[in-house]
Amino acid sequence: MIDKDTKFLIVGLGLIGGSYAMGLTRQGYHVSALDTNEDSIQFALDHQYIENGAVFDEKLIQDADVIISALYPLTMIDWISTYQEFFKSGILITDVSGVKQHIVETVQRNLRKDVEFIASHPMAGKEVSGVRNSDDHIFEIANFIITPTPNNSKRAIAFMKDFAAILNFHHITTLTPKQHDEMIGFVSQLTHVIAVSLMNTNDNTHLVEYTGDSFRDLTRIAKINENMWSELFFLNKDNLIREIEDFEKELNHLKQKLADNDEAGLKALFRQSTQRRTLFDKIDKPDQHKSNQ
Amino acid sequence: MIDKDTKFLIVGLGLIGGSYAMGLTRQGYHVSALDTNEDSIQFALDHQYIENGAVFDEKLIQDADVIISALYPLTMIDWISTYQEFFKSGILITDVSGVKQHIVETVQRNLRKDVEFIASHPMAGKEVSGVRNSDDHIFEIANFIITPTPNNSKRAIAFMKDFAAILNFHHITTLTPKQHDEMIGFVSQLTHVIAVSLMNTNDNTHLVEYTGDSFRDLTRIAKINENMWSELFFLNKDNLIREIEDFEKELNHLKQKLADNDEAGLKALFRQSTQRRTLFDKIDKPDQHKSNQ
Repeated sequence: MIDKDTKFLIVGLGLIGGSYAMGLTRQGYHVSALDTNEDSIQFALDHQYIENGAVFDEKLIQDADVIISALYPLTMIDWISTYQEFFKSGILITDVSGVKQHIVETVQRNLRKDVEFIASHPMAGKEVSGVRNSDDHIFEIANFIITPTPNNSKRAIAFMKDFAAILNFHHITTLTPKQHDEMIGFVSQLTHVIAVSLMNTNDNTHLVEYTGDSFRDLTRIAKINENMWSELFFLNKDNLIREIEDFEKELNHLKQKLADNDEAGLKALFRQSTQRRTLFDKIDKPDQHKSNQ
Repeated sequence: MIDKDTKFLIVGLGLIGGSYAMGLTRQGYHVSALDTNEDSIQFALDHQYIENGAVFDEKLIQDADVIISALYPLTMIDWISTYQEFFKSGILITDVSGVKQHIVETVQRNLRKDVEFIASHPMAGKEVSGVRNSDDHIFEIANFIITPTPNNSKRAIAFMKDFAAILNFHHITTLTPKQHDEMIGFVSQLTHVIAVSLMNTNDNTHLVEYTGDSFRDLTRIAKINENMWSELFFLNKDNLIREIEDFEKELNHLKQKLADNDEAGLKALFRQSTQRRTLFDKIDKPDQHKSNQ
């Protein structure tokens, strides 16, 4: 497991950065943080999520054994490029971004050769953001995905697996950046596209009083952080457009069954969806404390 | 309120019929039931949901002051047409169907003139069906919609409001059959179309282990009763096709923003969906005991 003397630096104290800080501190590690928002740093210090923190302090960068960027993807690329001169030789850098291909390629191409960037994605979250909503229990029902490339060392991959285990992630796995982005285009980005589009269909607000759980479940994620998600969507644009088009084919398929009065065809679609969804029930059950992510 | 001597007959002891029986009996009314499945009747008798029950018994029909059809829509039309000769003069008949226009028109047109059919829709349910899953608490978070026509009396409308109040429905309202079917096409049927189509998009079953709550929330209702929902869809086909097409327009709108690299346009869609969905939060909060309907 990871040496307790390891010094972690978290850059960006939002919900995920803050929850990482909580979890690592709870497990007895040394955690510092940088955030451009002084209030976020003060909150994390006051609540003992971190030992040290600042809006900027190159000493904290120089001391770090592991740097975790919990910034938005493009901000992270800039940050690493700007501050890598301060990195201690031999350190690991990881991230929390929801898309991987562009980021991993760019960061690994531009990085100093005596340090290592290994990307990872904690598939965890809440409907609310910011360090004040930090909660390291969100990881207990979440996937942790490591996306190594041929540039990554076995040591770094093993380290990330230990890191995820320390934070009690439910399921730890590795994918290539390409596999990751295809998967996330379907299971996360397409679902957000659907929720947003359903919420924007016609002016439906007069129907609020008639909605039941099915409509509310489908649209919960239509409350969306516009800056983060637009960045994630554009960074995975080709995969996402393809997923939307595949989904549209299925919609049209069902619509055609209706138009053709094809009862047997419609029922066959219902049976297929029922059978497939049943596979997911095995996963529904463990998370009693269902989040709204 | 409704006289305690009123004799209710429930035709069709599924989840809703059974839950109505439970609730009415709990409130001290006389409840009988007919169901072609003898086991369902026996279960309801054993659990004292009903006083009397049979696979068929014309005496129970003759004694009823209020008949509630909890059958599928087309089965109900047949049942009323076949057995109305046994109805006591002056009785009320209601239903539980999820679509209204076709049913109300057909039943009212063919009904004896000395009895009255007033349609209603309890927007309640569970993921599971059948009398064994009966639970009259499902009404406490649900809408009850009465869909009167000019053929209906004030007495009948008032009776249905009292009926819904007895069963503790959360919200009781009236709509025309046409308004009802347009509303249900959007808030219920379109959501099921989306869930089924998402579940059927490509072969996504290898992604099970990566799905989070957003995907699971969107697809929960993709486990669908093929017989009931195909009947409901075809009975509301024109509305539903129009809703699917309106939704597709929104999907294409969002896809175009991506294709055009129109960041401002994409963010505007996100802001609109966020604002609209916020209106629904007021409704999210009361139902702590969230069902998976």
